[in-house]
Formats: sequence, structure tokens, C-alpha cells
Amino acid sequence: MQTVYIIGVGLIGGSLAIDIKKQRPDIIIYGIDNNAHHINEALERGIIDKKASIEAIEKADLVILATPVDTAVMLLPMLLDRISDFGLIVDVGSTKSSICKIVASHSKRRNFLAIHPIAGTEFSGPKAAVPNLFHQKTTIICEIEKTAATLQEKALNLFATIGMRVRYMHPESHDKHIAYMSHLSHISAFMLGKTVIEKEKNERDIFDMAGSGFESTVRLAKSSPAMWTPIFKQNKDNVIDTLHDYISNLSRFKSLLENDDFDGIYKEMDETNYIKTILSGIQ
Amino acid sequence: MQTVYIIGVGLIGGSLAIDIKKQRPDIIIYGIDNNAHHINEALERGIIDKKASIEAIEKADLVILATPVDTAVMLLPMLLDRISDFGLIVDVGSTKSSICKIVASHSKRRNFLAIHPIAGTEFSGPKAAVPNLFHQKTTIICEIEKTAATLQEKALNLFATIGMRVRYMHPESHDKHIAYMSHLSHISAFMLGKTVIEKEKNERDIFDMAGSGFESTVRLAKSSPAMWTPIFKQNKDNVIDTLHDYISNLSRFKSLLENDDFDGIYKEMDETNYIKTILSGIQ
Repeated sequence: MQTVYIIGVGLIGGSLAIDIKKQRPDIIIYGIDNNAHHINEALERGIIDKKASIEAIEKADLVILATPVDTAVMLLPMLLDRISDFGLIVDVGSTKSSICKIVASHSKRRNFLAIHPIAGTEFSGPKAAVPNLFHQKTTIICEIEKTAATLQEKALNLFATIGMRVRYMHPESHDKHIAYMSHLSHISAFMLGKTVIEKEKNERDIFDMAGSGFESTVRLAKSSPAMWTPIFKQNKDNVIDTLHDYISNLSRFKSLLENDDFDGIYKEMDETNYIKTILSGIQ
Repeated sequence: MQTVYIIGVGLIGGSLAIDIKKQRPDIIIYGIDNNAHHINEALERGIIDKKASIEAIEKADLVILATPVDTAVMLLPMLLDRISDFGLIVDVGSTKSSICKIVASHSKRRNFLAIHPIAGTEFSGPKAAVPNLFHQKTTIICEIEKTAATLQEKALNLFATIGMRVRYMHPESHDKHIAYMSHLSHISAFMLGKTVIEKEKNERDIFDMAGSGFESTVRLAKSSPAMWTPIFKQNKDNVIDTLHDYISNLSRFKSLLENDDFDGIYKEMDETNYIKTILSGIQ
């Protein structure tokens, strides 16, 4: 592998570029981004070696598609039209059903691999790109069997090089579970932030009362709306289901309070403490 | 000040003991706890110098009441009965109205100071006690004017020594705002944890999909039910109000999704990004 094209040099695309460059300094990394400021910033920071345009991907060994998921679904068929028989396109979006569907019967389907590296921060743009973001983190791979074996191997070798832990999953199963494990956390944080801002809007100094608990619970409310709106759109049905469950649980907790059922409140929290076991498992 | 008694040698009481000892090695710190295991652990870790019983507080210069808030409200009148005219009792609970009310007309009201250091972690017990927990953190002080001036001074000097930033607030105002700034975050995290556990209970390995976003949003769901149940009980009305607002905002977000109003979804998130400004202010 000699040439890698990164489309979308933000948090995920930029961080991948940094790790690939570190492990494989022989590879030339080209950056493509419709944001001129971002592409120049990525160049200045040494995240990419050169700017490129989409036409150039004909020469790519690997294309990493790291745009917001709506753009990715729009671009992918066109990119597959252009990719050489030996090139591979990997998308890294947070939703997997739409992107797998859009190319299901594309003649170059074997030149595509759908993945979701479960790593990130609440920041965005090339400034947010950091080394080792994927190290020891799970990356979900969907429909591996639909990718050409030689290209699978190339991709898996690269993923291993940058320390990713790989798991395989059906795209619909991925989208259903990620709605709970990631998308819901974002909505929970955004609405927590909104609730507090609304309540405290005329009393700015009250924010002195914000401790580290609030800070970590609301952290994801700093995330980019441009990235998250299309994720919620593509995963709408699953996200609505998670929200329904979450709102039911909150309403039940509220009822327990209203009915002075503090044994019930204790039990709710005590049972949920099981999350400690789960979280220690993922660290 | 020569003798400090800490009642409840857990996360908050233990951390205070560590900082007081560090800044004022001449002070002898006595620990009181109804959990024999905890008191021995605090001794072994050098968090306290000696064990004591409640009767001994007659000799205290300072008593720090750091039990769960229901126990604190129950103990305080009796402690005030025992404290010397020169001694001060400081409670450090997350709710302030109940405790201020219970001693409002106590003959020794002047020997009590109600504070809430806004600092903590999701852990509990003496094992959770850490140095510098309160450094540069806000501590809310309620009804300062009801405490004897000489005792105020003694307390404020100590708080300054361990790096606390002090703010003054009415107990009811404290409880109303802390419901949004802290108590709601805990319920939000607990119910997020519950929702995910319920959904994924038969698919344990799905937790591989839990990334750092889920982890930070759900962190507070590790908190102690024994500590939090009485907080929710004492601050019930304010907590119900915050939950009402939070559930309304989540329901509205769900409606926007159901109606395919993705401009609305974008706007919700974009406006809530204002939390960045707020959080950078508190750091």
C-alpha cells in the first residue's frame, strides 16, 4: 500500500491519517475536504502530505471516507465508480445500514468495506485529530464477506497496525445497538445541556455550581450538529426506540419520587450500579 | 484549632480529613463512623488519627458532618446539644434546606455552618478519599449570618487553606439550582445506564460497542444509592421539576425526529453547543 486518500480530514479522518503515517511513513497521505480552511490546516499540521481532488482517487490504494454520514452515502457510489480494481474504499461512519444499502448492487461492491471505529471525542475538525485514538478500541466491521478477500486482508493488516480491536456485525444489528450505546448518550447529554441552559439563562453565575459530575454527563453536548444531525436522520427508527425507552425510565423514576417510593428509587439505582461491572469490562 | 472530628469518613469526609491534615499537621483528626470497617480502613490509611464516639465531640473545635443527608438531619440537633460554645459543626451535604430548617430555632444555631463543597467522584467510602478534591472548587455556604462571627472566621480560614472557592447562597435557592446542576445529571446517568442494561441484558458482548462517550455520560450511574436516595428525598420537589423539564425536552427532540424535522434537530444541538462556553468558564 502506497497511497491513501482521506476524504474529510476532521476528528476521525485526521486521527486515522496521523496513526497511519506514524506506522507506515512510506505511505503518501492525500487529503480531500470541501472545507478549504480544514484542508490547509491539515497540511500545516502535517496530518496529510498533499491536497488532492476526488478525481485523483483512481490512483488510490486506499480511500478513507470520513465525512458526515449523509455526504458519505451521497459520495460512495460515485467513488466506487472511480476506484481501480485494486483500490479499497473504507467508510468510517456511525451508521452502517444506509451506506451498505446504497452500494448493495454496485458492480464494485467488492472494493468497499463498511466499518465503524468506536472512538472519538466531542471535538471536530483537523484540530481535533489526535494520535492513538483507535488504539485498543473496538472497530465494528459490517458485511466483511462482500469485500474482496485480498482487500479485506489489506484493510485488516492496517487496522491491526494501528491497534484496532475488530468485531464483526450485521449493519442493521450495528445500527440498532449503537443507537443505545452511543446515539442515546448524545441526546441525553444534549437535552441535559438544554434543560440547564433554559433554567439558568438569566443567572449565569449559577454555573459556578456546575461540578465535575455535570461536566462529564453533559460533555457530549459539545458535539458537532453537522456530524450528528445526519446520524440521527439515518438511524431515526432505532433512535426513536431508544428515546422511547429512556423517557419511559425517566418517567418511572419521576413517578417513584412523586409517590414517595424511596425504596423503589434506591432499588433503581442499586440495580443500575451493575454498570460498574460493564464499564470495568470495557477498559 | 486543635481537634477536628469527622462524622462519616467516606469520599467527602475522608478527603477533607486528608487536606486538613496536610495543611495543618498539628491538628488531631478524630473519625466517627457507624461502619466499623470504614473507620478501621480510614485509620489504616492514615486519613484519621484516632477513632472516637459521638459523645467526645464536646471537646471538638470543629465537627464535620459528612454522612448521607438523612442521617445528617437526624444527628445535627443532638450534635449541637453537645458542642461547646467554642466549637463549630459544619455539614457538607448536597441539600441545604432541610438541614437549615431542622436547627433554625436551636439554641446553638450560631455554632452551626451549612456548606456544600461542589466536588466529588462517583466512588464512595474511605477508599474514595483523595487529596486536593476541593482545590479551586466552589463551596456554597448558606445562611452565613446565622453563624457566630468568630466561628465563621475560623471556618473560612480553613476553607481558604484547602483552596476552596466560596460562594454564598440561600438554602432554598441552593436546592433549586443544584437540582439542575447536579441532581439531574445523576438521574440522567442512572436512567441511561438502566435503559442500556435492559436493552442489552441478553447480549453482554454488545458492550464492546460502549465507547468513551457512553462511559462519560453514564459515569454517575456508579454513584452510591445510599448517598443519593436521601438527597432525592430531601430535594424531591425541585428534582421533580427538573425531571419534568428534562423529559419535556427529550420528548420534543423525539417529536422532531418523528416529524423528520432535521433542521429543528440541528438547531437544538447547535444552540446547546453554548454549553462549551459555560463549561470553559468553570474550568
